[in-house]
Amino acid sequence: MASALRLGVAGLGTVGASLVRLLTKNGAALARKCGRPVVLTAVSARDRTRDRGVDLSGFTWFDDPVELARSGEIDVFVELIGGASGPAEASVRAAIASGKHVVTANKALLARHGVELAGLAERAGVSLNYEAAVAGGIPIVKTLREAMAGNSVARVYGILNGTCNYILTRMEREGLSFAECLADAQRLGYAEADPTFDIEGNDTAHKLALLTSLAFGCKISADDIYLEGITSITTADIRAADELGYRIKLLGVAQKTDSGIEQRVHPTMVPKSSAIARIDGVLNAVAVDGDFVGEIVLVGPGAGGDATASSVASDIADIARGDVAPALGSPSDELVDYTRAGMRRHEGGYYIRLSVFDRPGAFATIARAMADANISLESIVQRRAEAPGLSDRGAGEGTEPQPVILITYETTEAAVKEALEAIVARGVVADAPQMIRIEKLA
Amino acid sequence: MASALRLGVAGLGTVGASLVRLLTKNGAALARKCGRPVVLTAVSARDRTRDRGVDLSGFTWFDDPVELARSGEIDVFVELIGGASGPAEASVRAAIASGKHVVTANKALLARHGVELAGLAERAGVSLNYEAAVAGGIPIVKTLREAMAGNSVARVYGILNGTCNYILTRMEREGLSFAECLADAQRLGYAEADPTFDIEGNDTAHKLALLTSLAFGCKISADDIYLEGITSITTADIRAADELGYRIKLLGVAQKTDSGIEQRVHPTMVPKSSAIARIDGVLNAVAVDGDFVGEIVLVGPGAGGDATASSVASDIADIARGDVAPALGSPSDELVDYTRAGMRRHEGGYYIRLSVFDRPGAFATIARAMADANISLESIVQRRAEAPGLSDRGAGEGTEPQPVILITYETTEAAVKEALEAIVARGVVADAPQMIRIEKLA
Repeated sequence: MASALRLGVAGLGTVGASLVRLLTKNGAALARKCGRPVVLTAVSARDRTRDRGVDLSGFTWFDDPVELARSGEIDVFVELIGGASGPAEASVRAAIASGKHVVTANKALLARHGVELAGLAERAGVSLNYEAAVAGGIPIVKTLREAMAGNSVARVYGILNGTCNYILTRMEREGLSFAECLADAQRLGYAEADPTFDIEGNDTAHKLALLTSLAFGCKISADDIYLEGITSITTADIRAADELGYRIKLLGVAQKTDSGIEQRVHPTMVPKSSAIARIDGVLNAVAVDGDFVGEIVLVGPGAGGDATASSVASDIADIARGDVAPALGSPSDELVDYTRAGMRRHEGGYYIRLSVFDRPGAFATIARAMADANISLESIVQRRAEAPGLSDRGAGEGTEPQPVILITYETTEAAVKEALEAIVARGVVADAPQMIRIEKLA
Repeated sequence: MASALRLGVAGLGTVGASLVRLLTKNGAALARKCGRPVVLTAVSARDRTRDRGVDLSGFTWFDDPVELARSGEIDVFVELIGGASGPAEASVRAAIASGKHVVTANKALLARHGVELAGLAERAGVSLNYEAAVAGGIPIVKTLREAMAGNSVARVYGILNGTCNYILTRMEREGLSFAECLADAQRLGYAEADPTFDIEGNDTAHKLALLTSLAFGCKISADDIYLEGITSITTADIRAADELGYRIKLLGVAQKTDSGIEQRVHPTMVPKSSAIARIDGVLNAVAVDGDFVGEIVLVGPGAGGDATASSVASDIADIARGDVAPALGSPSDELVDYTRAGMRRHEGGYYIRLSVFDRPGAFATIARAMADANISLESIVQRRAEAPGLSDRGAGEGTEPQPVILITYETTEAAVKEALEAIVARGVVADAPQMIRIEKLA
């Protein structure tokens, strides 16, 4: 058997501790599969005294991850520190500079510095692997980078954030408010104390940025992602979606269009019959459309120490076997520039929820605004049966604004915005309109 | 860029023609991803004159695939001939013997000779890749062999035959008989003129045998698979399943048990809420339970020239990148012997459909046989409301046997067989009992 592959792990949180357990439990089998032993030799973390439930006594301890990255004791630097800069960035750079392979779960770092780091790794002849950075235990990086190599990808999309999916699933199943579900997610450890990054879509955007580069052979461009989180989703939206045959999911979507590549993260109405609609709770799912393979969907745990450690181990195994693939699929200097497409014509139309003052002419105003913007309506739902109605048939002025839901036929983002601005300007709605894109999915 | 990787393709059916198109259309991008050109240089097929819709004039033609396999013009031999022996086997052996990498879509060949061929390939230092042999375009071989490397697998199961799934889906959706759906499948090209191999489960078994070896690091043992096809499934079974909250799927299941590894292919009742229940038509799906990653499910096209060519291209890309992994995950001489487990205790119980003579005491006889075998019943459904009933309350003897459906609680295969034998022996049923296993799935 060949010489051992020596690992140094920086960051001993949940994932780090799981990785230590994985190597203990399945290390012998892993060695058999890789043709050489894979051994953890050194670790680094902030607090040496903390009990992590795993025995660290056999490993060399480094207080400074950069020192670990440079150490002659390791062949692979496993970065599990997190963060787009600081010690994570410094130690990854140090590892590559000193000829170490890098395995990281750090989507924020790669979303910002991925192309540059990929280039540095290629020139140093080392791997930069990051399966764990996107969709936890799901092997989507390997699938895009290797399994889809013969395909031209038209679209990649998915549920990439377990926290948001957990919240939306509970809102739907139990009729609870966003705030209640978020609080539960925090209590259960599915959401951070500051959940902004998850619920506003930034985490999904970082992952999507990496998938976009892998799928389309372009440079990473996380700043060019249209971003909308789930904080404005109400139980009324979820109920209306259900009645209309949809579910609401936070999707990250990257799609090739005539004018460039569209990247967007937003709540999306997906048909209940679609595979993606059935992904509940903290699960993740990623779908890829290739010109030869058609659509492939991968489903699995999007987070959790053990699932993430499984992906880290996969990256390590590739290195142990000697498979050094370009980090972003193509060599970094052959990645094309990212060309941002405008928000495209959504084939599935739009869901619009308005809070309409119940007075004569209100509905005529709305209908006129839609017609002026060239928008055809597929359905109109007025929620409260007991309401006097919006038929403009001379009913008296009601006291409470009435929720009205419109589903449009295929139209453009610009047209919808124009119509909604006109409706707001004419004073017929009490609140800002809610607008959710409908996605046609297999 | 490194020197070109030269391919020779033997067998120019649907998959071969798709591969030629794939290389033409996406060859430049593939070269970028692999760091070297990938070029088709030579081909072999039975009929040189047949129009395959692709231009073959630029390639050296070999009448004999073995000659192609030995040719100095190629680095990789792509075997798309099919069959467990004959020219497919001879040419693959010749290719390995003359130091060529092999890519094949031939599950029958590997199910029979896989371990031996893997050993020959290892000793020759060449790859033996076969992503296309299992589940068409779904990257399940790569996922088990590489992505799951850090996991100990407890179970792998899936819908591995699109023909059977198409038939079962149409029977369910349209209430058509098995024979009608099979005829349609043949008309649409989803089933062969002789469909035995698909509908009796042999094709699923070949694929399962490969997954078992990959998942559990054991030798391939296709002869040790419990096998039951879908020919006995009636619309009555499908309707009953639907009412009870299940769908019927032909599953291949390989599972670690205390006594060894269980491999079985049979119609299975799966809860409608499970991911696998929602795989319709010619799609395939494979689920893997790993001790660290948890459950991962991969869904995609299980057949078709283009999807299969996508998997062939993935195998070629791995070779082009220089990634030579052991064919069966672990080196062939480290694969453990396959130990067959007895059919295990099915946690989800059994579905039993009986055609019961409508006479006093019939149901008491059935109930007694179940009790004698220690089987508890979860539910009893008597289909025809207009029937006099099986309540043994002194109703007169009916003319027509009545269908009765029993769902058992958890029990053993042996107990169910014992009970059914007793029921048959006591002459209370008109036909052989139908028995379908219920699988507990996530």
